[in-house]
Amino acid sequence: MSMGSMTSCESLLDADLGGAPRQVLGGGGGAAPERVAIVGSGNWGSAIARIVGRNVIEQEGFEHQIRQWVFPEKVSHNGVEACLTEVINREHENVKYLPGVKLPENLVAEGDLALAVKDATILIFVLPHQFLGRVLPTVAEALGLTKSGGNAGAAPGGRRIRAVSLIKGVDKGPDGLKLISDHIREGLCGAVPVSVLMGANVANEVARDELCESTLGLADEDYASCRAAGLSVTADADTDTLRLLFNRPTFRVTVVRDASATVELCGALKNVVALGAAFCDGLGYGGNTKAAIVRTGLAEMQVFAQRLRCDASSFDATASSRAFLESCGIGDLMTTCYGASRNRKCAEMFARESGKRSWEQLEAEELGGMKLQGPSTAVEAFGVIKKKKCARKFPLLTTIYRIAHEGQSAKTIVEFDKVQA
Amino acid sequence: MSMGSMTSCESLLDADLGGAPRQVLGGGGGAAPERVAIVGSGNWGSAIARIVGRNVIEQEGFEHQIRQWVFPEKVSHNGVEACLTEVINREHENVKYLPGVKLPENLVAEGDLALAVKDATILIFVLPHQFLGRVLPTVAEALGLTKSGGNAGAAPGGRRIRAVSLIKGVDKGPDGLKLISDHIREGLCGAVPVSVLMGANVANEVARDELCESTLGLADEDYASCRAAGLSVTADADTDTLRLLFNRPTFRVTVVRDASATVELCGALKNVVALGAAFCDGLGYGGNTKAAIVRTGLAEMQVFAQRLRCDASSFDATASSRAFLESCGIGDLMTTCYGASRNRKCAEMFARESGKRSWEQLEAEELGGMKLQGPSTAVEAFGVIKKKKCARKFPLLTTIYRIAHEGQSAKTIVEFDKVQA
Repeated sequence: MSMGSMTSCESLLDADLGGAPRQVLGGGGGAAPERVAIVGSGNWGSAIARIVGRNVIEQEGFEHQIRQWVFPEKVSHNGVEACLTEVINREHENVKYLPGVKLPENLVAEGDLALAVKDATILIFVLPHQFLGRVLPTVAEALGLTKSGGNAGAAPGGRRIRAVSLIKGVDKGPDGLKLISDHIREGLCGAVPVSVLMGANVANEVARDELCESTLGLADEDYASCRAAGLSVTADADTDTLRLLFNRPTFRVTVVRDASATVELCGALKNVVALGAAFCDGLGYGGNTKAAIVRTGLAEMQVFAQRLRCDASSFDATASSRAFLESCGIGDLMTTCYGASRNRKCAEMFARESGKRSWEQLEAEELGGMKLQGPSTAVEAFGVIKKKKCARKFPLLTTIYRIAHEGQSAKTIVEFDKVQA
Repeated sequence: MSMGSMTSCESLLDADLGGAPRQVLGGGGGAAPERVAIVGSGNWGSAIARIVGRNVIEQEGFEHQIRQWVFPEKVSHNGVEACLTEVINREHENVKYLPGVKLPENLVAEGDLALAVKDATILIFVLPHQFLGRVLPTVAEALGLTKSGGNAGAAPGGRRIRAVSLIKGVDKGPDGLKLISDHIREGLCGAVPVSVLMGANVANEVARDELCESTLGLADEDYASCRAAGLSVTADADTDTLRLLFNRPTFRVTVVRDASATVELCGALKNVVALGAAFCDGLGYGGNTKAAIVRTGLAEMQVFAQRLRCDASSFDATASSRAFLESCGIGDLMTTCYGASRNRKCAEMFARESGKRSWEQLEAEELGGMKLQGPSTAVEAFGVIKKKKCARKFPLLTTIYRIAHEGQSAKTIVEFDKVQA
């Protein structure tokens, strides 16, 4: 698939960058410094760029320049039409997706995806997951990744490349739900371990440096290599490169080993539980009932995480349980279920109007076409539940699915325990 | 201490009770049926009486009549001054504390505490904990409980008596914090195991039979006897008498073995964490920050539960962790931190006004003299933290205490991690 449409603005990588020359390295360690590329430049991508941009300067072991792939679109800025990439590099502000917030000057916006990720050793994916199918082949090619039979691949010259996904949601797969991290892993020829960063992280608040927490679900390969290097991931997580890259005094990152994708599943399934919470709000139910729904949702998320990979002998119940108590678990769930997001308002309306408007209509009329993640994630999650014939283990998730997609009355949310197989 | 003031209304126990004669027994089992007495008749006491009153009829093994000790006060009802006890028995409605809701006809209000609890085998304590000191000696005497050296006591004739506390909060004790259940246990001569029932249970919503969950923290003695009787408490909790007494289709009770008082501590400490959450709201902080505070609060509650009884070899980390994921843990915490209670509004004002008004003033001016539990529980909890010299293990609880009681700025809530010993 051609990425031509993504390179319509001129590459700025080699332009004069003022205070951030390309080869300045952080720290004086012997190992080659990490080169960071951010794939995506929306609201959340811009907020995380502010964090990462400062950390590569302040922490050791990173090249000071970071590159951000920005979809080369035209924006109207101060009454003049301009390329967003150029505006970011000139004004150090993403005037479209994070207006009013200064970005670090060592961040270089790049409209050419291949140039943006070239020679990167850490890739941060933060874009709508619908774009992954188009993006990943270009990234793999630019990094020289090749399929070497089966799922396992290789990076040229034995370079160690890692990816971190900040994308909340799930894909559709042949078995129903497919993890975004698996999608990225496969798209990068199985050669790159994919960690995830999830939590109660509303982008605009992160951009204002308000205190928050986030959870880094370390890919098993990364965890293993930390251990091999004699690092104790739980006791001495400070030393992990990825944590250094994201952690700040007001953005507190906790590391969880995540063989079972619990952190990522939390980030996706919380949107389904939030539908149930919003149904309660829409119907005017009280705080007791909403708490029962949200709490049951968390419990079913736990069982789901366990069963999704129930064939894997590697399921680590302790690590998984821990993840649920971190920001990616209850933190994000509380914010999503009790916050005043537009997404929640839509699901409230759905219940109040007895499903008179479809999700597509609500998205078009209330969110300006922005996609709600809950309804689609409910479909993928229920696909797994149906395939494994275990609706009785997931009465709440099943009930939410049926209300959202099968015309069942929203009032049945309080009768979720009546679900049969 | 004389209980004379508590018996100013005539005893109604032996009056004609219409459809609920005293000796009708539930079921036909061989064992003597349980006789239930409720000590307390406020908002929550009345709501739980509706539940218990129906269950003793519908479930096997209980006497059909239940007695409720009602503080014999005069109320104005339909323009006429009357004794609350009489009004309840005539109208089957607690017109003062749960107006507009019918109580079961098999519930008998009794102004004489000794008569109310006489021959009871299950005692439900649901009254402000400040009254316990006056109430417990009368209860112990009426039940014929005697101190038989040390903490262990005995009930006459080998009768098995159990208590359940629905009281949220803690007492002041010589070591700082003292559990309400311990207070009750001691007051009943160590002869009665004390379980607790806690959860996201706003009384008025429970009284309307809206769906909610609750957690029964089974006293260790009760748990042991279930096991001895061949009952698996986790797998077959339905069979437990106390669960039968409280569980209903819209009031779903989960049983947790609670050797370490985790369920009870959750019910108390959540009010301290809620202060921190309200400070965030009062200062206009966003959802990320509030989620970080609440989540950290839950984590510190866990450590606190573990350390409070850290000398006890019986601490059961798995059961304790489970309790935090039940309604008594995250359920109640979410409702308290995100609900619109008057208590929370007070703590919001405290932060917004930079502590200009004391807690006493706020209670007097905003709550009509009703007591906030958070500030006093913070004192008792910090007493333990100080005594054990472990402020660094509880930076958030310590910071909340210092803001609430030592004039520290509410804005320091986001710097809780800077706490030193």
